[in-house]
Amino acid sequence: MTAEQQLELLTAGTEDVLPEGAFLERLRIAERERRPLRVKQGFDPTAPDIHLGHSVGLRKLRQFQDLGHQVVLIVGDYTGMVGDPSGRNKARPQLTADVVEANARTYLAQFFKVLEERPAPPRLPVEVHRNGDWFSKMSFMDVLRLAGQYTVARMLERDDFAQRYAAKQPISIHELMYPLMQGYDSVAIRADVELGATEQKFTLLVGRALQELHGQTPQIAMTLPVLPGTDGVQRMGKSLGNYIGVTDAPADMFGKVMSLPDAVMPLYWRLVTDATPPEVAEIERALGSGTAHPMEIKKRLGRRITGLYHGEAAAEQAQRDFETQFSKRGVPDNVGEFYRTAVDSVAKNPDKPLVIDYLVASGICDSKSSARRLVEQGGVDVDQVRVDSPLFEVDPGSDHLFRGGRKLLRYRSLAK
Amino acid sequence: MTAEQQLELLTAGTEDVLPEGAFLERLRIAERERRPLRVKQGFDPTAPDIHLGHSVGLRKLRQFQDLGHQVVLIVGDYTGMVGDPSGRNKARPQLTADVVEANARTYLAQFFKVLEERPAPPRLPVEVHRNGDWFSKMSFMDVLRLAGQYTVARMLERDDFAQRYAAKQPISIHELMYPLMQGYDSVAIRADVELGATEQKFTLLVGRALQELHGQTPQIAMTLPVLPGTDGVQRMGKSLGNYIGVTDAPADMFGKVMSLPDAVMPLYWRLVTDATPPEVAEIERALGSGTAHPMEIKKRLGRRITGLYHGEAAAEQAQRDFETQFSKRGVPDNVGEFYRTAVDSVAKNPDKPLVIDYLVASGICDSKSSARRLVEQGGVDVDQVRVDSPLFEVDPGSDHLFRGGRKLLRYRSLAK
Repeated sequence: MTAEQQLELLTAGTEDVLPEGAFLERLRIAERERRPLRVKQGFDPTAPDIHLGHSVGLRKLRQFQDLGHQVVLIVGDYTGMVGDPSGRNKARPQLTADVVEANARTYLAQFFKVLEERPAPPRLPVEVHRNGDWFSKMSFMDVLRLAGQYTVARMLERDDFAQRYAAKQPISIHELMYPLMQGYDSVAIRADVELGATEQKFTLLVGRALQELHGQTPQIAMTLPVLPGTDGVQRMGKSLGNYIGVTDAPADMFGKVMSLPDAVMPLYWRLVTDATPPEVAEIERALGSGTAHPMEIKKRLGRRITGLYHGEAAAEQAQRDFETQFSKRGVPDNVGEFYRTAVDSVAKNPDKPLVIDYLVASGICDSKSSARRLVEQGGVDVDQVRVDSPLFEVDPGSDHLFRGGRKLLRYRSLAK
Repeated sequence: MTAEQQLELLTAGTEDVLPEGAFLERLRIAERERRPLRVKQGFDPTAPDIHLGHSVGLRKLRQFQDLGHQVVLIVGDYTGMVGDPSGRNKARPQLTADVVEANARTYLAQFFKVLEERPAPPRLPVEVHRNGDWFSKMSFMDVLRLAGQYTVARMLERDDFAQRYAAKQPISIHELMYPLMQGYDSVAIRADVELGATEQKFTLLVGRALQELHGQTPQIAMTLPVLPGTDGVQRMGKSLGNYIGVTDAPADMFGKVMSLPDAVMPLYWRLVTDATPPEVAEIERALGSGTAHPMEIKKRLGRRITGLYHGEAAAEQAQRDFETQFSKRGVPDNVGEFYRTAVDSVAKNPDKPLVIDYLVASGICDSKSSARRLVEQGGVDVDQVRVDSPLFEVDPGSDHLFRGGRKLLRYRSLAK
């Protein structure tokens, strides 16, 4: 592939690629000098479960790998062992070397479900470094020299520091060191490109500054968008319970994809599958024009994602099981349907209808108060999942299956 | 001596002893437990010349030593070797270990002109530590833990940081570490008391905070006033050329003391001699009531200070030489005198008379313009020192000897 073709593929789905224009130059130099770019991503081995949100960066790295570039993973083992000495940050506990190493291994095993650890040439095996390799050898004096390369004021410009400082919330001095450490990782491995999430942009730029001070060409800073979770709104995360883990069983993975709101499907196609930009464009067109049914596209998405982590056979099986279970639970093909207009006519807020609105609109219940009671008694499923709250909002833009007691009705988001 | 007596002696001449009341308690505990207090002072071995300004702290330490306490000197060799990695601070060059060690030895040799390195029991030998002993063994992780014990906001409260931050002058992150390092020195040597100059108060308090976090009783922070130089106004310092070095030859030392303005004599007695508080009080009384002539008190001061650094015999010789040289230069005992009223009558600003006012008032010159010319031609000495500027101010509160061409007259500050 030419540098220009690589640029198109590699910048697809990214948020920022800084500085403007430099990435194409870097790709051209690599092409001319016939050397791979060194593409870095770091991670803190704190909680050992990764999900599709993490895979956004990994998929991008995989594209680099497929194009023959050198992927370099940095395990932040050293910072993990430090924890938060001020004791204020519960998310940063002090971990023993054993725990950090165990977490790192678990993480890497999951990473290699996306990246190829040892691919066939000309693709390159992934390079893995633990930043303790260099930080554990640094003396107090080395640390002071590193700290001397950045000013307090510039560091406090970082969004979260700026907000906390303005709000007079304590910031410990060691916290100013973490971005410098991450930046120094780029120096240590001579990164050409570093990938990170949106909120890491500042740190990626610190890496550029430190590389320049160490006589290196500063890295390209590439940020990727945040993936919403299965609720379609909030960032995917373990604590919110809206995540799809890369080690989830095929059936769970497929089922969770099927529960996604239709609106986020294009984003998922773009960020967490191996679909090419033209393929994604085609899917968006089909969804937009109504030539494909959203349910079918979603099944393809579930099959594609499950296939990436469990292979095509397991994905096919997961789909079959999903469809069988759907019918086993007694969902006849010719189940009765109801439409948006019915919901609009009963909902207080037609933009955000509640489960009880659907129950009344469908005729399952004859009043909102009886619908409320039925939900509270645990008698209502939406899309085969028990609903606990009468105030549960259900997206009117996607299809759903409602079960209330023994009654079953399908909601269709399309006009009749 | 009882704790109360020690308190009186040790707090004499100090500026702050913090926290209020704690020092007496600490002295009582030491008395009760029959253990000496550990009294710390640190210094950076950057420029190898020390002067009476530095001796203010050393004299206070000597009092502690004489009372049987343990003096602990910290050589800041480690910070000296770091220098200023940002390259902005010229006063903090990066020194080699050899230079730092040579400076430290020179410094210590000078310190032991005030402190007794190995006194006879029950007084205790001075303990000397190089802070590289502990800092060179600290890992990056140890540094992060140390940095985690203080917040950015609290550190930026330090006067000079606050001013620079407000003025948008760069502060490198490593600079925030220096106060923590000095504070950690107190932890390392388990200091009971730390001495410092006025502007070090903040750092002494950082030491208290760190000790507490390390489970130690926080040290007493004792600050000492700044000694004015031979001009009587500006802080004594090498760059201002207004200093009396502790290694100055006896004659120079004596002569420089003789050039002091009368007004600062009590401060010198208090801060840089071994005079007891009652003795200082007596001198102040004598000066105030006019029962002693300032010149005589100044000679005693010169003799006392010179004696401290060169022994009594050398000091006596220095005084004799000074007096002989004075008369050799042709100052007859019965030189003519003039008084303040004469100066007041010609000076534009009688509070701050200029050398030319004295020349006219004394009759040496018959007009200010001829006095100006005489000064500009290099023909005027005040107190045996050539004066270059017609606008040179001469303190009307002390006696002076004026020479203009071949004429010689003594100014008397006392009323006739």
